[in-house]
Amino acid sequence: MKNIKLTCEYDGTNFYGWQRQSTLPTVQGELEKAIVQLTGENVTVNGCSRTDRGVHAFNHVSNFLSDSNIPPENFYLALNTKLPDGIVCKASEEAEQDFHARFSCRGKKYSYLFFNNPTRSALLNSRTYHIKDKLDVGAMEEAAKHFVGTYDFSAFQAMGSESSSTIKTIFDTSIKITDKIICFEIAGDGFLYNMVRIMAGTLAYVGLGKIQAHEIPRIIALHDRKNAGITAPAQGLYLKEVYYKVCKVK
Amino acid sequence: MKNIKLTCEYDGTNFYGWQRQSTLPTVQGELEKAIVQLTGENVTVNGCSRTDRGVHAFNHVSNFLSDSNIPPENFYLALNTKLPDGIVCKASEEAEQDFHARFSCRGKKYSYLFFNNPTRSALLNSRTYHIKDKLDVGAMEEAAKHFVGTYDFSAFQAMGSESSSTIKTIFDTSIKITDKIICFEIAGDGFLYNMVRIMAGTLAYVGLGKIQAHEIPRIIALHDRKNAGITAPAQGLYLKEVYYKVCKVK
Repeated sequence: MKNIKLTCEYDGTNFYGWQRQSTLPTVQGELEKAIVQLTGENVTVNGCSRTDRGVHAFNHVSNFLSDSNIPPENFYLALNTKLPDGIVCKASEEAEQDFHARFSCRGKKYSYLFFNNPTRSALLNSRTYHIKDKLDVGAMEEAAKHFVGTYDFSAFQAMGSESSSTIKTIFDTSIKITDKIICFEIAGDGFLYNMVRIMAGTLAYVGLGKIQAHEIPRIIALHDRKNAGITAPAQGLYLKEVYYKVCKVK
Repeated sequence: MKNIKLTCEYDGTNFYGWQRQSTLPTVQGELEKAIVQLTGENVTVNGCSRTDRGVHAFNHVSNFLSDSNIPPENFYLALNTKLPDGIVCKASEEAEQDFHARFSCRGKKYSYLFFNNPTRSALLNSRTYHIKDKLDVGAMEEAAKHFVGTYDFSAFQAMGSESSSTIKTIFDTSIKITDKIICFEIAGDGFLYNMVRIMAGTLAYVGLGKIQAHEIPRIIALHDRKNAGITAPAQGLYLKEVYYKVCKVK
């Protein structure tokens, strides 16, 4: 059996998250449905992460085992003929037998988009978190830098985390502003449940002056969710990159 | 009665165009519903143009008459509390009694977005026209310049045009490329039915080498729809600006 690695983009708006559900449309469910239509095989597609309802992805990685004779590097083209509008496969390849999209993952990069304008935007509504009041981008930038390092991030964890350890390493963060869109980017070796959304909500509080940038190290150190900001809404979150060691078949 | 001028942004994806329909959601229908909820008045909202199903707008202008004592400059804020996610009012003001969003209009600017990439994009699907094959942007730019001027644009008109004359003046056109998105902008004193979409489809043909840029003047001069390109799909089209002479109450 071949182990096929897929890279997909999706608009999370019309899906009930990644994980298969019996009656509701999900990204995993749609991929598995497309594969059975193509190959007749009832497979399980392993995702690198189970994004929540409304969360988007530019490069979500998953894998599945198949006996199909569709060439692995062309699988994505065949899949795209069966997938709904909101999901696109951007690449496929054969991976090592022991490659697993979730367990082989060494890190991820997320973007979180704020739309900072007095009135909301009809076109950006399901794509950004709208904040009316002017955000202090400089303060947000300073705060975001404090996330970089290896810490116990329990303060930035929602109930239901499956992670074996609350200690994670954040490699890098950045804040960029383009017109009225503020983009928070964060890369790390792993993320707790809702960690990026709680960080984004905390940065929003910093931008609004409700939390000071220099308080972030203390919020991390106290390990208490109550000190951090709100969980920012799902629609602003994008899974951007997933990092692996070599996973290609030689 | 006050004559209220509205400027709205909308995501055309989930609306059956601008014009009110008895059972289907339309932009005009939603605005009129929101106004009756706010003021109890059954008004007709006059739109600057009747965009088709799937077409978007950044700054669509409309007007209606009202006896409401909501201050005209705050009307948009009140309306936003009643409008669905896909429509946002960005501004409102009192206009002269004889101001009419359609008949007072002196010109419009549209954008048309192409997504030029081998695979489609899930996130840009309802916002752009996806073209797989590499477009020659230089040729498209040269072709777009030929639209500037005063001509009989019958060759770029779909059946059902309501316009009294097929002679229109195009003030300016431009082609800009950002990453994989090609943006065609066009401003003019008026547009025939589907004119921008047929021009966009013609530019796509130029980009693909099916029509040469220097053929555009001849296509205009022959007045035959068959010589132009396809009608590019609605989801790539955005009404960007609407021009009026002074319409403010002094």
